Amino acid sequence: MASTESNPALSYLKSHQQDYIKELTEFLKIPSISALPSHRIDVRNAAEWLAQRLRQAGVSRVRVDDTPGHPIVFGEAITDPAKPTVLVYGHYDVQPVDPLDQWTNPPFSPAIRDNILYARGASDDKGQVYMQLIAAEAWLKTAGLPVNLKFLFEGEEEIGSTHLSQYITAHQPDLTADLAVISDTPMFAAGVPAVCYGLRGLAALEIEISGPAQDLHSGVFGGSVANPAQVLSTILAAFHDDQGRVQVPGFYDGVDPLSEKERQNFSSLPFDEQDFLQQTGSPKLFGEAGFSTLERVWARPTLEINGMWSGFIGEGRKTIIPQKANAKISCRLVPHQNPARVLDNVMQFIQENCPDTVRLKIKRQEADPGTLTPLDHFATQAAVKAIEKIWRQPAAFIRMGGSIPVVVTFDQILKIPTVLLGFALPDENFHAPNEHFHLENFDKGSQTVATLWSLLENMDA
Amino acid sequence: MASTESNPALSYLKSHQQDYIKELTEFLKIPSISALPSHRIDVRNAAEWLAQRLRQAGVSRVRVDDTPGHPIVFGEAITDPAKPTVLVYGHYDVQPVDPLDQWTNPPFSPAIRDNILYARGASDDKGQVYMQLIAAEAWLKTAGLPVNLKFLFEGEEEIGSTHLSQYITAHQPDLTADLAVISDTPMFAAGVPAVCYGLRGLAALEIEISGPAQDLHSGVFGGSVANPAQVLSTILAAFHDDQGRVQVPGFYDGVDPLSEKERQNFSSLPFDEQDFLQQTGSPKLFGEAGFSTLERVWARPTLEINGMWSGFIGEGRKTIIPQKANAKISCRLVPHQNPARVLDNVMQFIQENCPDTVRLKIKRQEADPGTLTPLDHFATQAAVKAIEKIWRQPAAFIRMGGSIPVVVTFDQILKIPTVLLGFALPDENFHAPNEHFHLENFDKGSQTVATLWSLLENMDA
Repeated sequence: MASTESNPALSYLKSHQQDYIKELTEFLKIPSISALPSHRIDVRNAAEWLAQRLRQAGVSRVRVDDTPGHPIVFGEAITDPAKPTVLVYGHYDVQPVDPLDQWTNPPFSPAIRDNILYARGASDDKGQVYMQLIAAEAWLKTAGLPVNLKFLFEGEEEIGSTHLSQYITAHQPDLTADLAVISDTPMFAAGVPAVCYGLRGLAALEIEISGPAQDLHSGVFGGSVANPAQVLSTILAAFHDDQGRVQVPGFYDGVDPLSEKERQNFSSLPFDEQDFLQQTGSPKLFGEAGFSTLERVWARPTLEINGMWSGFIGEGRKTIIPQKANAKISCRLVPHQNPARVLDNVMQFIQENCPDTVRLKIKRQEADPGTLTPLDHFATQAAVKAIEKIWRQPAAFIRMGGSIPVVVTFDQILKIPTVLLGFALPDENFHAPNEHFHLENFDKGSQTVATLWSLLENMDA
Repeated sequence: MASTESNPALSYLKSHQQDYIKELTEFLKIPSISALPSHRIDVRNAAEWLAQRLRQAGVSRVRVDDTPGHPIVFGEAITDPAKPTVLVYGHYDVQPVDPLDQWTNPPFSPAIRDNILYARGASDDKGQVYMQLIAAEAWLKTAGLPVNLKFLFEGEEEIGSTHLSQYITAHQPDLTADLAVISDTPMFAAGVPAVCYGLRGLAALEIEISGPAQDLHSGVFGGSVANPAQVLSTILAAFHDDQGRVQVPGFYDGVDPLSEKERQNFSSLPFDEQDFLQQTGSPKLFGEAGFSTLERVWARPTLEINGMWSGFIGEGRKTIIPQKANAKISCRLVPHQNPARVLDNVMQFIQENCPDTVRLKIKRQEADPGTLTPLDHFATQAAVKAIEKIWRQPAAFIRMGGSIPVVVTFDQILKIPTVLLGFALPDENFHAPNEHFHLENFDKGSQTVATLWSLLENMDA
């Protein structure tokens, strides 16, 4: 533990370990469920608790800023304007707790079993927010922070971050930074700490095909007019070939081919296809030909039907030609695809595949690009080194198939890259009963973050 | 009106015309809505009214038979066991009346405007049941019936004839006949009385495609497993080519090619494609290549998606890979297709088009054949002659695209053909507000039926 000895922040974290765990359980007792109006005051209490605790840690200019929804906690610790500034983002709101009877301990009565802390919010994301807080405190109470830190903790992440981008736009001067760090993602697996450098984007639309003025009797009219459900099926079926490749012309424009290096990196990860398959519950894995499963979910764009409906969907039978048929479609996009162009292409494809025997309406929805923080970015490399120092093993470089809208906001409004450095585990029941957080990862996580700040000190050098 | 003079039944009908219309309005005042439990007693009252009125007409052995649902009225008038026996079927129950505020006169307060009788049940089917009753009475009160008649009037037609085939099976000896006549169909158009000689059958099934164990996050898993909605769409899309022809192998097995004579007959009917299109509200007519619209709906089998659903169908967006996708399918069949075989073929087609990346369940449902009463059948010819006598114009020969299950029951259990001889008009709002019946057609209809009985007297000769 040579590195620990030489780093005052790490020593501080070690010596306060038990107190911190105790204090985290206090934070977790506040039922800050953002989705439920009955918990509105609890959400505010969690914000106030966090603000107070930031002040106590030595963070200055701490504010609880109102929004039309739940408040946002802001704070900053400016050591030296000449040093790099990192914006730390997290959220203090949590998911609802149903079904309650499946919890071993009540969700807001934290309990520790086998060095695992069980409570709603333990890993998503209060535990990781608190981990960031104590990593800063460990420096503030000892040698002082090696970098400037700004904190942005929201209370609406679990309900779609409704007011966040509006807030960021309005408070842009406060939020100026060189880099964002988010601890709201999992490690690749138990014992495999990871830096996530890529996320997919999202583009969505809705299709409505209408034919007759109302549902028609399929005896009286069957055979004489186009059936909207049939037409919709034909359009949806045309989206993919039987090898899983999207058939929309131009869909793959801008998609970076996977480099040999990245493919090797993906394939070197301890990824178990059988485990993954079991997680899905599907009979078989299936995806775009020519790519591995990780490549498909991390680095290839997809087009999915999220929902569709037409005609009679109740019990029993109603022999009709439905009046209309609808589908909700969304595409996961990879970096360098143009989201607006993707939507244009998908819309054109639908139009071209739609016969004049029906009427077509397309409702275009928002589109966010995928994001990528270059592997060779100073901050990515620093995060890797911090992991190696604390975990004494190489860091995994991973991407994620999902989208984190705030990363796009940071990119588009604040013009800063984001490093995703999370220490939850993928199976810690984030939105389910018995959410938990391995305290070993909580400890190592706070040490990794504290180490990262010292490694970033010379980022601009 | 030479024929009227020489036929005592027609004279009787004419001389009682005003009384009959008055009495029909009494029948229509009984709100015999079979679908609503609150009208249970009204349905029974209508049955009792009808039974009493049959007795008064001179019909013997009149019974109101209980079923687990609404009662069935049976009666018979046996003139001479050596003469042909006709089973007359109709229903005395009616549809609900919502939306009530769209009625000009209240649905159970009949009103006559411009010689049109407005009331719920006026044309569907109380008016036509009563028309049958008085046609029999006109003979019973004068020269006696030229044929034997049996009456079978049910009170559950509008709720799917739940207990009818069970009743027919149980009372088979009572219902022995040479022929059934049903007046519950429309004429081809105003001024175009018709004999309907063919109906389509029905075969239905439900498909369920399931993939993941639950809805999956389309970011985390998108691209790695088959999407059940996508698979279902592909199967549904494969059912037809772009010319509207069903692609299921064997689907058209047994389908009679349309004879030149029948095609000429169809095309000679005063059918207005623009009117028909307007009825549908669709932007364009569309159907199997090589056939006219009437041929498509009357004499060609179809396969329709009646409903489908998958994933998230609420407001907004939920980026998931749905756990499952469902569809309800039904085929309209024409005579000489084997319904069970059609279902076999459709099931096999689905199975062959379903990849092993998902799980498939098919729920096979009942299948009824199409029915056809030969054009050269004595009864068909007699109906045509009766129309010509009363209407002084040729009868139209028509088929119908829908199914009338009781015709299949008569065919399969009683082994008798059915002649469909109805005098409603297609636009008389059968299941809608302001249902009505043109009294001119009511008069001519009762005369046509009375004439038919005399023409059938020598059927077996």
